Amino acid sequence: MNTQTAATQAAAERSAALLAAIAFNDDGLVPAIAQQHDSGEVLMLAWMNREAIEETLASGAVCYWSRSRRRLWRKGETSGQTQRLVELRVDCDGDTVLLLVDQTGVACHTGRRNCFFRALRGNALETIAKPIVAPSALYGEG
Amino acid sequence: MNTQTAATQAAAERSAALLAAIAFNDDGLVPAIAQQHDSGEVLMLAWMNREAIEETLASGAVCYWSRSRRRLWRKGETSGQTQRLVELRVDCDGDTVLLLVDQTGVACHTGRRNCFFRALRGNALETIAKPIVAPSALYGEG
Repeated sequence: MNTQTAATQAAAERSAALLAAIAFNDDGLVPAIAQQHDSGEVLMLAWMNREAIEETLASGAVCYWSRSRRRLWRKGETSGQTQRLVELRVDCDGDTVLLLVDQTGVACHTGRRNCFFRALRGNALETIAKPIVAPSALYGEG
Repeated sequence: MNTQTAATQAAAERSAALLAAIAFNDDGLVPAIAQQHDSGEVLMLAWMNREAIEETLASGAVCYWSRSRRRLWRKGETSGQTQRLVELRVDCDGDTVLLLVDQTGVACHTGRRNCFFRALRGNALETIAKPIVAPSALYGEG
């Protein structure tokens, strides 16, 4: 067995134990919470299918399933704002995963560190965080 | 306007601003991440509908929608392990809410503080937290 084959097989064995524990929904997806591993900041929620999980485990870089684009979404593939997987956890009934990650730059497409920047205060939703990076710097002007 | 009516109206106004920003799915639900407000611990993920959100805002105690029981799930109604809402946040595209809460006791029905007690380490899912309370103490023996 060459090195590549061994690595692929090891990744497949890791995935198998995990995938058996996950209760995917009718669309074959599971919600994934991304949390910055050291600060505890909740960065975002996105969705994963089996292939996204397998790729994430094999590469160590978080890959989601984009429901709008209907394809694998390698987080940061356009913006460079990647997430390195530190640990993957599964909840009690297997229908949610928690990704402890190390976020490069910002998690949100608006240029904010995390996606939860609107808070209900009084009767209004207030914006509680400013962009750190301009979206145009992440995705280009067009 | 009596006190009760004023309180109800104030709750309705708070809800209105929030509900307008939420993109509920085809089942009328939105995923809600519960995070302990001070420690940053991610406790659980559950689902809310409009009514659950309205009740949560009116009472200050977190109420979800139970997909399995198909009814409002007043967190802790049986176990006493309630969640007091500290702040509610909405993500960039409005399809996830983050509940900053103060959890009484344990969030998980297994008696663990949080539901994410299984971690992928090596090729196996390891149980990384023990129950703090016996489930039988939370829900009775039968």
